Amino acid sequence: MEQVEWEQHKKFLKQAVKMAEKGVKSGKGGPFGAIIVKDGKIIARGYNQVTSSNDPTRHAEVDAIRKACKKLGTFELKDCVIYSSCEPCPMCLGAIYWARPKALFFAADRFTAAKYGFDDEFIYKEVPLPLEKRTLHTVCIQMENRNVPFEQWEEKTDKIAY
Amino acid sequence: MEQVEWEQHKKFLKQAVKMAEKGVKSGKGGPFGAIIVKDGKIIARGYNQVTSSNDPTRHAEVDAIRKACKKLGTFELKDCVIYSSCEPCPMCLGAIYWARPKALFFAADRFTAAKYGFDDEFIYKEVPLPLEKRTLHTVCIQMENRNVPFEQWEEKTDKIAY
Repeated sequence: MEQVEWEQHKKFLKQAVKMAEKGVKSGKGGPFGAIIVKDGKIIARGYNQVTSSNDPTRHAEVDAIRKACKKLGTFELKDCVIYSSCEPCPMCLGAIYWARPKALFFAADRFTAAKYGFDDEFIYKEVPLPLEKRTLHTVCIQMENRNVPFEQWEEKTDKIAY
Repeated sequence: MEQVEWEQHKKFLKQAVKMAEKGVKSGKGGPFGAIIVKDGKIIARGYNQVTSSNDPTRHAEVDAIRKACKKLGTFELKDCVIYSSCEPCPMCLGAIYWARPKALFFAADRFTAAKYGFDDEFIYKEVPLPLEKRTLHTVCIQMENRNVPFEQWEEKTDKIAY
């Protein structure tokens, strides 16, 4: 990476950490912030608002992704870069994969988050486990009708893939 | 699990698959549905609305979790059970862990989703990889200010943990 480019990434990442600070000050949720950049410009800012919005999915990255998509009028963030104050948890990492940005930069890591009482690293350990080894009681019941929605989807001629 | 209990789980899971069918028919997104049950009663229903709402995070489970939390006025789903028409993708599984229900039941699996063109299994493979091996270009920059939000959080006397 060229020096100029590197400095720009650091500039944006610093902004993401600033968003996390703003979030803490606001009292709306945990100490996490994120920003989304397209063509060198910030198009969305987000911070954690889990506890104030009664939405366990409203992490900084999810908050920023939703705002950016709304602004662009799309359900993907192609050519965008996501900057997060902390390594995304598996939920947010999954959300980022679905949003399909071109890159992700983060500052603190999951172990720092764990040190301050957040479950990120715990969930990272759970995700790859087989169902029966997970802490969450999980059962797969192969219902007779389980493939019907997929078959209907396959037959749908006006479907929008994502 | 007792037979009566088992039949009840199947009854609710069938409803989740029905929600997926409803979603396909609505044209609002992919073929996935979910319901959330508390004390034997359905408190929220969701289906995938990614493409119609321009929200890549609006999978069935996330949709249902947000609705259930809103209804209960909480950011956790303690004592609730989540039923999903298909195995949750890592984003949704993460969301479920954060919501902390007591159990998860699903019908179709991630391999069926993959067969119909959905990235669930791909993302499951990506999540446990070290950053440098992921398809998504990911960089950790240990910014000098990276721990500031956590330190502010630690010092905050009126914080709400989650």
